[in-house]
Amino acid sequence: MLTVFGTVALDTTRTPFRTETRILGGAATFASVSSSMFAPTSIVAAIGSDMPAEHIRALSSKGIDTKGIIIIQGSKTFHYDSSFDYDLSNRTTNKTELGAIAGFDPVIPEEYIKSDYVYLANNDPKQNIKILRHFQKPRLVVCDTIEFWINGSRDDVVKMIEMTDGVVINDNEARLLCKEANLAKCAKKIMSWGSKFAIIKKGENGAILFTKEGLVFPAAAFFLDEIVDPTGAGDSFAGGFLGHIARKGVTDFSTMKEAVIYGNVMGSFAVEDFGIKRLLSITKDDIEDRYEKYCNLVQF
Amino acid sequence: MLTVFGTVALDTTRTPFRTETRILGGAATFASVSSSMFAPTSIVAAIGSDMPAEHIRALSSKGIDTKGIIIIQGSKTFHYDSSFDYDLSNRTTNKTELGAIAGFDPVIPEEYIKSDYVYLANNDPKQNIKILRHFQKPRLVVCDTIEFWINGSRDDVVKMIEMTDGVVINDNEARLLCKEANLAKCAKKIMSWGSKFAIIKKGENGAILFTKEGLVFPAAAFFLDEIVDPTGAGDSFAGGFLGHIARKGVTDFSTMKEAVIYGNVMGSFAVEDFGIKRLLSITKDDIEDRYEKYCNLVQF
Repeated sequence: MLTVFGTVALDTTRTPFRTETRILGGAATFASVSSSMFAPTSIVAAIGSDMPAEHIRALSSKGIDTKGIIIIQGSKTFHYDSSFDYDLSNRTTNKTELGAIAGFDPVIPEEYIKSDYVYLANNDPKQNIKILRHFQKPRLVVCDTIEFWINGSRDDVVKMIEMTDGVVINDNEARLLCKEANLAKCAKKIMSWGSKFAIIKKGENGAILFTKEGLVFPAAAFFLDEIVDPTGAGDSFAGGFLGHIARKGVTDFSTMKEAVIYGNVMGSFAVEDFGIKRLLSITKDDIEDRYEKYCNLVQF
Repeated sequence: MLTVFGTVALDTTRTPFRTETRILGGAATFASVSSSMFAPTSIVAAIGSDMPAEHIRALSSKGIDTKGIIIIQGSKTFHYDSSFDYDLSNRTTNKTELGAIAGFDPVIPEEYIKSDYVYLANNDPKQNIKILRHFQKPRLVVCDTIEFWINGSRDDVVKMIEMTDGVVINDNEARLLCKEANLAKCAKKIMSWGSKFAIIKKGENGAILFTKEGLVFPAAAFFLDEIVDPTGAGDSFAGGFLGHIARKGVTDFSTMKEAVIYGNVMGSFAVEDFGIKRLLSITKDDIEDRYEKYCNLVQF
């Protein structure tokens, strides 16, 4: 089983073309819907009593085990309000209402403790460290982090990375975390803290996988004529990456490279519509078709 | 024959690690040294009487026909003084001294007029249009342009593009030129002006080739642990791209994709040392080795 710990949120997303209010979002939502297309997935999250039941049903309908989603009575669901600029490349935060996730003490259902694969999304690194102790003996633990924690709790971020097998992180956040501009050096620093591999995500410019053995795999992004909403691309990438590894059950370099491409593919679906809409509608065939298309696209 | 028209310059390049003063540079230098590794190359440029003869000998030593390099007596060579920031990703212009290239009326030696391949570097688009009339019947004309001309002579840039077969341009300059953030839309606009293909260069993030038939080829950059001086990467790319097409003598999509990879390879060599130094030292075997390495790097 693959367990995802992160936010199941309500997002208000404003692009120059459209605004969507309080739609289903959150790192765990994107990652789990993405990974559920590859392997049995369960989710750990805290939501408020205002979360529409249909949203949780949408996750269950993908076969995701939602037992780990706790409703914090009297709290509101994490709400993230942001605006994208004209070319959808820069996001401005308008409002962050933590609600139910503030001070959330993650507990995991008994059924999850044997999870082989764990994705710790951009939560408070202290929470990520804490939840990790509940798992019996995961084969692969991957984490992400964001500017907020790097600025406020860098030591905890480093401690968290010490305890994980792999890090999936945005380029600019890697630079901020490592105090280093060169991405190869960032990856080396992350791996010096204990991580066996690091994947640096570069948005529309693809991703680079670095391993402790010194192997490197740069991958162009799947090419899209148009992007509707970049929200969730990174977590969808992580879900596809870990999902493919979980379904194959191995972590050799060749599988990890395929997993990066599946990550790209899932990220490319995510941005084709607002929020989680597109990811909820695709089939396994759609994924394999796009993987094939990607292979043809980059072949020379 | 492949003819390159552009600057043969003296560059003062400042990085956080080192400053090099009045070293050999210029768009035509990088492009011609790069293309000379693939196909017979000639060059058209104006220099001042201060240009050290050894620099021109360095070009000749690569087999480049330098008959088209005119010394403008009493003028100084184009001098470009710039500084890179800490991560070598942003360049600030400190000084631009046009010298010999101001008002240069390009004439081409008789021997060049039958050139099959022409690269018009980031010159004044009016000069590019003018020189183009001198060639008899080139099979492929490719141009580049920069912010300076887009801001000051946008109509001429568009006119120049109308007269060429392909455009090789940086991502941000494509956005500026096309008044459009999405790179696919930029490429479409450029091709709507008459160009048959457009290559958008994205620095360390590789390049994307777009063709009028709607074909697309995104290519990751060759991965380097360290960059010494990014100067000339784009022109080295263009030289490798056009050079490979010239040596193969065809412009089908498959050849163009290979040419993009050779462009990447030449750009990756260019940035490994200051100025043109590294490109002057490599052999044809080095190029084929790195092409092979690139193939292995991106394979999955």
